[in-house]
Amino acid sequence: MLSKNKIRYVRSLESKKFRNAHNAFLAEGNKLVSDVLGAFECEWMLAKPSWMATQGDIPAGELLVDEYDEISKVSLLSTPQDVIAVFRRPAYDLSHADASASLVLALDGVQDPGNLGTIVRLADWFGIEHVVCSPDTADVFAPKAIQATMGAIARVQVHYTPLESFLKAASENSVPVYGTFMSGESLYGHALSEAGVIVMGNEGGGIRPEAEQFISHRLHIPAFAPGRATSESLNVAIATAIVCSEFRRPRENVS
Amino acid sequence: MLSKNKIRYVRSLESKKFRNAHNAFLAEGNKLVSDVLGAFECEWMLAKPSWMATQGDIPAGELLVDEYDEISKVSLLSTPQDVIAVFRRPAYDLSHADASASLVLALDGVQDPGNLGTIVRLADWFGIEHVVCSPDTADVFAPKAIQATMGAIARVQVHYTPLESFLKAASENSVPVYGTFMSGESLYGHALSEAGVIVMGNEGGGIRPEAEQFISHRLHIPAFAPGRATSESLNVAIATAIVCSEFRRPRENVS
Repeated sequence: MLSKNKIRYVRSLESKKFRNAHNAFLAEGNKLVSDVLGAFECEWMLAKPSWMATQGDIPAGELLVDEYDEISKVSLLSTPQDVIAVFRRPAYDLSHADASASLVLALDGVQDPGNLGTIVRLADWFGIEHVVCSPDTADVFAPKAIQATMGAIARVQVHYTPLESFLKAASENSVPVYGTFMSGESLYGHALSEAGVIVMGNEGGGIRPEAEQFISHRLHIPAFAPGRATSESLNVAIATAIVCSEFRRPRENVS
Repeated sequence: MLSKNKIRYVRSLESKKFRNAHNAFLAEGNKLVSDVLGAFECEWMLAKPSWMATQGDIPAGELLVDEYDEISKVSLLSTPQDVIAVFRRPAYDLSHADASASLVLALDGVQDPGNLGTIVRLADWFGIEHVVCSPDTADVFAPKAIQATMGAIARVQVHYTPLESFLKAASENSVPVYGTFMSGESLYGHALSEAGVIVMGNEGGGIRPEAEQFISHRLHIPAFAPGRATSESLNVAIATAIVCSEFRRPRENVS
């Protein structure tokens, strides 16, 4: 049986305040927990026997077999799955986010946890190992963000740091810093490097002046058929995907 | 003052059953309502004087000035804006979705209203005027979907029809039908036509066999750095964006 205290503790992790206080986060779902288990320290888990049978050794501090269908008492999902677990948050070293050697994403105030999680998932797809976020970007350990990563949180390091100093250092080391603007040069015609920083802005306001001052390459995703009335902008996760795809697509032979 | 009956009616449009019964849908927000107003018949509107002053003539069947801050009584948003309105649903002619003349998106059971709305928004960006959905795809007139279109619903026609017959007709007319699969050919190396159908599948299950049988070009979005452990898939809206960007980017000169 789950104690009331435990139920309260697990559900408290929906709030950033308690995630910070306990240095922990919540993950749910058969595939997600399986992915995360290989990457982070698990302090508590409640799982159905059927799911446990699909796993090898489960290194959890406290492992409860859900014989009484109690997952729904702690789950935040509308359709609870077979496992829910609490993990310790990782501590990452920002200096590993070396934009002179590989592509790094930088997020300037992305607000929606779903957008953030989706961006981490696509970063993983495109081989981007570090996502550097301004302190006011959504918390990637929020349940909605974790779920949207679909397990990519186990492979992508998400850092929180003042963007200005991170971009300033990149700029001083002659690392290319890309950003998308309404007024930039077409993404499709631009020579894109294999390493550097790609800055993506807030959903409504885009990239702030504090970050913009360090951008060396101003890009724009052109809408098709200019002149036609069209949407004014793209969702930030969609724009990130288009930019990352363009950076990672095989290079054309330039004659 | 808003009557209880009116409040009940407006809020009932959150449900597909009542949207169907009344052939109507709900839109909220200053920019969204402004966009939609030019495209669909407005049967009822509640707006603050400040918003109304930004508009020209407002052709609404019933127009209420929100002097008593009553928008929050009917709003579905966590932060209500200055206007909420009920519109008649449009009736579209599917025969205009001519995939021999332009790109058409076909959605095979996309479930999440946010994904669907985001896809409509990016279709608009990429000059795709018709999105053809299987009957079990999410309802684009659901409030969450409408909001996610960010007004693109005013410019993109969304059709619901059995995909099998739509794709069969395209196939019989030698229209190229593209779909993405885990096993397809790399999107980046493939010659992509300027007209045709792009089929995108359900979030979990992808494209079903009933639609797959008509696909003439099996594509795949390759992950970067093959061999590396990576996410198994991309969010469907993200995948749609990458595919559409690739179709619409300027063609390289083939020597």
